Amino acid sequence: MNSSVQGVFAAVLTPLDGDLAPDRAAIARHCRWLRDNGCDGLSVLGTTGEANSFSVEERERLLEGLIEDGIPGNVLLPGTGCCALTDTVRLTRKAVELGAAGVLMLPPFYYKNVSDDGLFASYAEVIERVGDARLRIFLYHFPQMSGVFLGHDLIDRLLKRYPDVVAGVKDSSGDIDNMIRNAQAFPGFGVLSGSDEFLLPLLQNGGVGCITAVANVAAFLAAEVYAAWREGDGERAAHIQARLTAVRNAISALPLSAALKEIMARHTGDDGWLHIRPPLARLNPTNAADLFITLESLDFNPPPAP
Amino acid sequence: MNSSVQGVFAAVLTPLDGDLAPDRAAIARHCRWLRDNGCDGLSVLGTTGEANSFSVEERERLLEGLIEDGIPGNVLLPGTGCCALTDTVRLTRKAVELGAAGVLMLPPFYYKNVSDDGLFASYAEVIERVGDARLRIFLYHFPQMSGVFLGHDLIDRLLKRYPDVVAGVKDSSGDIDNMIRNAQAFPGFGVLSGSDEFLLPLLQNGGVGCITAVANVAAFLAAEVYAAWREGDGERAAHIQARLTAVRNAISALPLSAALKEIMARHTGDDGWLHIRPPLARLNPTNAADLFITLESLDFNPPPAP
Repeated sequence: MNSSVQGVFAAVLTPLDGDLAPDRAAIARHCRWLRDNGCDGLSVLGTTGEANSFSVEERERLLEGLIEDGIPGNVLLPGTGCCALTDTVRLTRKAVELGAAGVLMLPPFYYKNVSDDGLFASYAEVIERVGDARLRIFLYHFPQMSGVFLGHDLIDRLLKRYPDVVAGVKDSSGDIDNMIRNAQAFPGFGVLSGSDEFLLPLLQNGGVGCITAVANVAAFLAAEVYAAWREGDGERAAHIQARLTAVRNAISALPLSAALKEIMARHTGDDGWLHIRPPLARLNPTNAADLFITLESLDFNPPPAP
Repeated sequence: MNSSVQGVFAAVLTPLDGDLAPDRAAIARHCRWLRDNGCDGLSVLGTTGEANSFSVEERERLLEGLIEDGIPGNVLLPGTGCCALTDTVRLTRKAVELGAAGVLMLPPFYYKNVSDDGLFASYAEVIERVGDARLRIFLYHFPQMSGVFLGHDLIDRLLKRYPDVVAGVKDSSGDIDNMIRNAQAFPGFGVLSGSDEFLLPLLQNGGVGCITAVANVAAFLAAEVYAAWREGDGERAAHIQARLTAVRNAISALPLSAALKEIMARHTGDDGWLHIRPPLARLNPTNAADLFITLESLDFNPPPAP
């Protein structure tokens, strides 16, 4: 399967207004900045984007707003996986109608210790109900957050039943061996790392890119890694990868969405970036100050904000 | 605080139709049967009721249907806690408008390792947004499923800020020491066990009752325990509690919703009871057969179905 979903994707933050509702103008502006500065695509409404803190209506309006504000549908890989089958179907349909490149689909994540039969039935039921040949699903494997494990056998079973729909996986497990195993076992199945640190090693072993939180501020570095690797310049790729990993480690030592919103607030001079919906919370001032000291020591300077 | 939420509550199953949508007539029938056979109240749309597998609209319609079908609002303790703040506010408002005795509120459960500040802000924001003096919240503590821990200090903080709203907790942690500690530390705060096995020990130590899955089929036993305890007949209470615990252990060795739906299907002769929404799945035939053998050996016979 050839997919447009490859390269560097940001797990896009969702800027909020004073009522803690998604700020349509601000996210469109952020998406444009990301595209201008290294992002091949935009995975809005994922974990970093606080998707599960928004109602389905809020998520639909956010997607529609992006399209109306000029973001091309075919660079979008929105998260659409909810706990409720009917919600996942509704959001997935919306994404397909808006021309998204694909959808990033968490398994239903409330119940724990569910069977592979139950997980297979969840994905199968969504695919059948959406019933659209344009649908491309990227499984979202993030067991530390979802509490649900999307194992090799389940992927194999889904690929055998829905080879034209099941297009890849975002693997946020942090287990590079698992990523490589899936990339090598399933030709044409696009494996993307959920963490910047594995971008280069995964590309070198059959993967197709990354979808990361840190790309909200460091996509320019990830894009350099990707470009150097495509040009066969392994030395330069490794050098930039080391810089990217250092930045990633500094940020991911803290709650990611909150830390990234602090960075964007300082970078843009817009304190609106600090709004975050509970249960997430702003960084405490000490952590924020320490983060900026560390980033300065790494000489980390994102491209100018618009 | 005096609350009507005490005694035996079922965590009510949600019967589904062939499209895996809630079956309005069947749940009303089930609720009437439960009230006629030992339940003081009905906690619909909890974990056992597959609430998180339904959209907010499906849940609203289910609640409205129950009222229209003659179930009194004041025996209902519906689950209303969702991942999204706006969903929780909407469902909670609906429950209050329908005259529910209270609501059972999970914390937002997607993000893990969230701070007590973030959890406090989640509950506070819901309470402020609902803004209704009739609101009574029972916290839903089920860390094994939600991945979120509602600790003693958080409850203390919520009670100090919202003493008229925060009315109690359903504790499904299985930690009887935690239940007793909260019951004794917070006078007037209603602690209910999420598991039948702790009904009597919790009543004897300051708790007010239970809200359980197994009450879908065994409320008649739990009601006997409760009645004997109120009458001061400790010996009889302990005797029936032992029977209830044995039944509970047999059922809870299997996935609860699926096992209980099997029992109801056989008990009513209605195979519609076997529908279950993914990611949950039907019991496999061997497990179902073994369950019925065990229940027979316990001489377990629920009251006749309508």
